[in-house]
Amino acid sequence: MQYPPVELVLPDWVRAFVGDAGEVYPEIEDRMRLVVGLSRLNVRHDTGGPFGAAVFERNSGRLLAPGVNLVTSAGCSVFHAEVVAIMVAQRLVGNFDLGGPGRPAYELVASTEPCAMCLGATPWSGVRSLVYGARSADAEEIGFDEGLKPPGWAPAFEERGISVTGGVLREEAAAVLREYAARGGEIYNSRQGDA
Amino acid sequence: MQYPPVELVLPDWVRAFVGDAGEVYPEIEDRMRLVVGLSRLNVRHDTGGPFGAAVFERNSGRLLAPGVNLVTSAGCSVFHAEVVAIMVAQRLVGNFDLGGPGRPAYELVASTEPCAMCLGATPWSGVRSLVYGARSADAEEIGFDEGLKPPGWAPAFEERGISVTGGVLREEAAAVLREYAARGGEIYNSRQGDA
Repeated sequence: MQYPPVELVLPDWVRAFVGDAGEVYPEIEDRMRLVVGLSRLNVRHDTGGPFGAAVFERNSGRLLAPGVNLVTSAGCSVFHAEVVAIMVAQRLVGNFDLGGPGRPAYELVASTEPCAMCLGATPWSGVRSLVYGARSADAEEIGFDEGLKPPGWAPAFEERGISVTGGVLREEAAAVLREYAARGGEIYNSRQGDA
Repeated sequence: MQYPPVELVLPDWVRAFVGDAGEVYPEIEDRMRLVVGLSRLNVRHDTGGPFGAAVFERNSGRLLAPGVNLVTSAGCSVFHAEVVAIMVAQRLVGNFDLGGPGRPAYELVASTEPCAMCLGATPWSGVRSLVYGARSADAEEIGFDEGLKPPGWAPAFEERGISVTGGVLREEAAAVLREYAARGGEIYNSRQGDA
């Protein structure tokens, strides 16, 4: 008997929300508005935590792949929105390196500053730009754990050729976090069991 | 049209190698020997990078889930051995929290010290123990990038209730890294394209 496969499947509402493939989001705020919309609908559809992300072509703003947090719904602690967007993007491109030769530059947009795992995943994905909305403090305020982040990660990303822009539409993004908390959404930090 | 699912499937040879489900590996060296064996076969079967991992029940040593690096073969930069083992383990348990109420304590064993992403993923998985073989320096020696790791991550893990043991069978584990390099295995760090 083989080990069972693990499947990542975006909820059906995602395609309906983002519309046809390849739609263009010219400005950074347009991209963030889409991603915050994903986070909001993920809460309202009860399909996971209050986080959205997407991979866009950096220069044109063409959407490649959306992502939403699926930790609780899919039963996988790795399925943060950023990781989900990266996995779907690489599946669509057919390669583990979004920064490979001949490809356009890609940008990862996240509704909240990435946690330690998602920060670690970002350089491996091949994106050349990271944009986020709400800040870690906003996520921590409702009880989420952001993990052990290396101090000075943003300048270190820039040195690696990954530009970093934070706080875009922060208030809209943080409002979704508060909505999730107000609805009693699960704060699924690790280790709910006894020590 | 929906977005395509992303599937994580362990190579067929993995089950044949680890044998029946639930086999017991009592000592830490037994567990590491299995994991280094996974890394070695992953190289020889050409199914990914030179890294293996597995999740065991910490006290009994019963194997829950193996993992191997599938970055190049599956076209997904997230599929490091540790993440793969965590995903398969959570699929088998049916929950995103391996440390949830009523579950035995689980241990993640990795053939090489985890990179920044895998370190970030470890606390979210719910494991209570992390064991690794080769050190970061061994991986870096053949050209792998370990990413931005927070200084003092091991004591910080201990504070979070995750014990850390490094350097178990380091030489055997590092020998697989060197074998991979000697065979001309792909060093698939991010961003092969121009800046």
